[in-house]
Amino acid sequence: MPEPLKYGEDVLLVEEGKGRTFLVRLEPGGEFHTHRGGIRHDAVAGLAEGSTVLTHTGHPFVVFRPLVGDRMFKVKRRTQIVYPKDAGWIVLALDLRPGARVLEMGTGSGAMTILLSQLVGPEGRVYTFDRNPGFLENALSNIARAGYADRVEAAVLTAGEPFPVRDADAAFLDLPSPWEAIPAAAEALAPGRPLALIVPTAEQLKESVRALCEAGFVRLETVELLERPILVRQREGVRPSERMTAFTGYLVSARKRLPSVPDDGPNAGVAVDGGG
Amino acid sequence: MPEPLKYGEDVLLVEEGKGRTFLVRLEPGGEFHTHRGGIRHDAVAGLAEGSTVLTHTGHPFVVFRPLVGDRMFKVKRRTQIVYPKDAGWIVLALDLRPGARVLEMGTGSGAMTILLSQLVGPEGRVYTFDRNPGFLENALSNIARAGYADRVEAAVLTAGEPFPVRDADAAFLDLPSPWEAIPAAAEALAPGRPLALIVPTAEQLKESVRALCEAGFVRLETVELLERPILVRQREGVRPSERMTAFTGYLVSARKRLPSVPDDGPNAGVAVDGGG
Amino acid sequence: MPEPLKYGEDVLLVEEGKGRTFLVRLEPGGEFHTHRGGIRHDAVAGLAEGSTVLTHTGHPFVVFRPLVGDRMFKVKRRTQIVYPKDAGWIVLALDLRPGARVLEMGTGSGAMTILLSQLVGPEGRVYTFDRNPGFLENALSNIARAGYADRVEAAVLTAGEPFPVRDADAAFLDLPSPWEAIPAAAEALAPGRPLALIVPTAEQLKESVRALCEAGFVRLETVELLERPILVRQREGVRPSERMTAFTGYLVSARKRLPSVPDDGPNAGVAVDGGG
Amino acid sequence: MPEPLKYGEDVLLVEEGKGRTFLVRLEPGGEFHTHRGGIRHDAVAGLAEGSTVLTHTGHPFVVFRPLVGDRMFKVKRRTQIVYPKDAGWIVLALDLRPGARVLEMGTGSGAMTILLSQLVGPEGRVYTFDRNPGFLENALSNIARAGYADRVEAAVLTAGEPFPVRDADAAFLDLPSPWEAIPAAAEALAPGRPLALIVPTAEQLKESVRALCEAGFVRLETVELLERPILVRQREGVRPSERMTAFTGYLVSARKRLPSVPDDGPNAGVAVDGGG
Repeated sequence: MPEPLKYGEDVLLVEEGKGRTFLVRLEPGGEFHTHRGGIRHDAVAGLAEGSTVLTHTGHPFVVFRPLVGDRMFKVKRRTQIVYPKDAGWIVLALDLRPGARVLEMGTGSGAMTILLSQLVGPEGRVYTFDRNPGFLENALSNIARAGYADRVEAAVLTAGEPFPVRDADAAFLDLPSPWEAIPAAAEALAPGRPLALIVPTAEQLKESVRALCEAGFVRLETVELLERPILVRQREGVRPSERMTAFTGYLVSARKRLPSVPDDGPNAGVAVDGGG
Repeated sequence: MPEPLKYGEDVLLVEEGKGRTFLVRLEPGGEFHTHRGGIRHDAVAGLAEGSTVLTHTGHPFVVFRPLVGDRMFKVKRRTQIVYPKDAGWIVLALDLRPGARVLEMGTGSGAMTILLSQLVGPEGRVYTFDRNPGFLENALSNIARAGYADRVEAAVLTAGEPFPVRDADAAFLDLPSPWEAIPAAAEALAPGRPLALIVPTAEQLKESVRALCEAGFVRLETVELLERPILVRQREGVRPSERMTAFTGYLVSARKRLPSVPDDGPNAGVAVDGGG
Repeated sequence: MPEPLKYGEDVLLVEEGKGRTFLVRLEPGGEFHTHRGGIRHDAVAGLAEGSTVLTHTGHPFVVFRPLVGDRMFKVKRRTQIVYPKDAGWIVLALDLRPGARVLEMGTGSGAMTILLSQLVGPEGRVYTFDRNPGFLENALSNIARAGYADRVEAAVLTAGEPFPVRDADAAFLDLPSPWEAIPAAAEALAPGRPLALIVPTAEQLKESVRALCEAGFVRLETVELLERPILVRQREGVRPSERMTAFTGYLVSARKRLPSVPDDGPNAGVAVDGGG
Repeated sequence: MPEPLKYGEDVLLVEEGKGRTFLVRLEPGGEFHTHRGGIRHDAVAGLAEGSTVLTHTGHPFVVFRPLVGDRMFKVKRRTQIVYPKDAGWIVLALDLRPGARVLEMGTGSGAMTILLSQLVGPEGRVYTFDRNPGFLENALSNIARAGYADRVEAAVLTAGEPFPVRDADAAFLDLPSPWEAIPAAAEALAPGRPLALIVPTAEQLKESVRALCEAGFVRLETVELLERPILVRQREGVRPSERMTAFTGYLVSARKRLPSVPDDGPNAGVAVDGGG
């Protein structure tokens, strides 16, 4: 049985029609003030998700628990966040699964950390690093609000320093100079495991690719994703929207290769066919 | 410690340079024949992921475990598959997490089922349906090869029939006439939970949106994703690739709203502010 | 020798740095007031194009004659205009050249009429029609301001009525229901000559294509153009802009085929090989 | 009255259904061999454009005069050509019109030269330059075939050398290092007039923009155009094509500014408001 909305949890209020949304933590006696009138928290607590509530002026809002994408968009932002379209691509590139141990450099506002935490689950771990203590503090507060504080280990760290992590299942880099962190990320990853990164300019993309190749990564993919909203109107017809977020970043994924050790014996790192 | 590659598991052989890939199940005494010469399975078993092996003619291949995206692309196809770029978007739209119970209509070749299974983990379940028994059989074989057979429950079912599932955490529809399955999917979903679908044409998109609205879904998003490969060459420079997969489908996500019951009392479904 | 800017002609004032632009007709004694201070027309008349003038508060503006694209964007708008990116495509589809006689249905604000007029030159003609007399009046004023009134013949006409034009070299349709005008446009075109149209939705595109096929057009091309602004910053780097005009319309081009007359003789419309 | 197709001119044969096209020069007694059987030129000469002819095996082809876009695609190629979508954008950027005098550096295969020549008309001139005599020879043959030889003046010239042209109305650069030709192009342009260029990589784009700014150009626009084919099927529905030409080049346009001369008098180049 689905659990009713209860005090202490976050609720997404969705204005009917317009679709404006608000993320609110339910508290006994609380009241939320919208441009369409107030909603008493006590009228929401106990309802099932998907119920409709009216403001005191009679405007309907639908109440939901936030999805992970809502959480990501609603974090208190101190930095640019990774957009859901890019985040989805990264999830596949990183081969995420319950129990995975993931390294993240560039916590930023923690939007991506929330997604990674949700997907690795309570058995997994996200080790996240940022050189800016203020960003990290804000991110941890966002992560705690999403309920994932116990899956996340965070620390201040500057790109280029070694990561205090070994045999990570995946690594994600979101920082201006990812090439500075690539050798250390290669050290922290288990052999063969994937790394992904996002950068905003062609120059940074080029430098990142150079650093990945130098660090022995293979299977490089370099792409950009465009998400195009489509307007679907039953009478007027179907067409792409006139405006869109036209660019968010270049995405790279790659896999860590083991260094080919000098061939001084039949089983020496490079498996010569016929050896063994 | 990372586990070495062992007999009985699938290995992705990645040709150096060209990047052609082959998915091979390791068997004692087996041999894999590429256009670049043969590779003995016994030379691969026991290696760490990311190691390099040579064919008998001396061509290097790097050996990896397949990532979930490799699995999706390498399924034996009886149908069009959901592309990773779209699959990543759907993962976020469906708010996946370990332990989730997900409904899928239109198993097809099982590529998406593999991804859903990996993300819900051993505690989760994917209930997948297709009206074509042949597709389902092929898909189950692909799913079993990926190691996720025990998380998947599959059955033959025609769009429009009720799903034998209740309170599902998410639903994904991939079939030519999703509108036929939308009312039953609404029944199967827990209140407030998300549904996503993919369709190939503007007409199908329109009809799907109409059906979702009729079935009481809200928070509709209708988008299309373009994945643009970028060529990064250290000398020649950076530019988008000249060719791309220009279209794979329109994506829709929505959340299930509870029907607004007639307001015959202070707690009757629609919570009137000030009631309670 | 390039002619200096003179009274009675339009001048484009381009704010230095910001690049805001203003289209101003030079008049003796006139003064133009910008948010950056005033510019006396007498200080502009007599200058060469590309000169810099200062407002009375010392802000520099560069003065140019407007290009045809500036003219198109600066028309007094009563309707949506055809964007330059689409207009360029249409120019090629219509195989324009000096002296050509072009039919246009849906004058709108006259932006496209201005372009067509410039390209057919003083020896050519643009026959333009709109069912809305108010639009036509505004468009003719825009066209006159661009200096092309004597190349344009305009009349009020409803889609479906025959055009008072024969053997036109090209036809362009920009109206909500182009299919209503397609048979008449086919009548007005010289055999083999091209027609182009623009429509905003998938449904209108489909119906237009149906009507073109029915009217015997062949060589149909149906495309959409996306113009993506690129940010080029010497220090920060190169990347696509974050915002763009994501959709303006679907474009169609086609060529008029002669009806295949019943084959009642060796030279009867359909040339049977061996006939003649 | 439209003129019938006659010997000595080029005809575009369009296969019915498939839409494969062939460009053929009609000659008395000639025969064209397609994969669908032969067509005797004598059966085509004398027909109106848009007529249908049958091969000796009975396959129908429609006959047209080539449009300028057909000419551009059908040139004998020694180099990459400018695509029509980009060419249309350039036409607007260059503010073309009958009688204009246009400078082109990087003749290549002459596709763009053909378009420029058609649009400037018999009163205009295209001055085109390439450092490769072989390219130029091939281009001139393509241009002659299109009938525009007498509007074009061509010469071998290396980027960086001064152009033997002054007060040109527009300039177009299509070469690997446009920055080398930009100062000379600025010399050759009339003040205030537009320049456009196309380059394939982000690095070349950046360097070109730097050179344009240094040479005093303003009103820079830097864009990329994507042309997306749309499939329109009456039964199956409307959707973008699965494949597209995903990238052809970055486009730049700009206008030549006059150098601001030191302000040593009331009329000295920079018009100080209140001066004159």
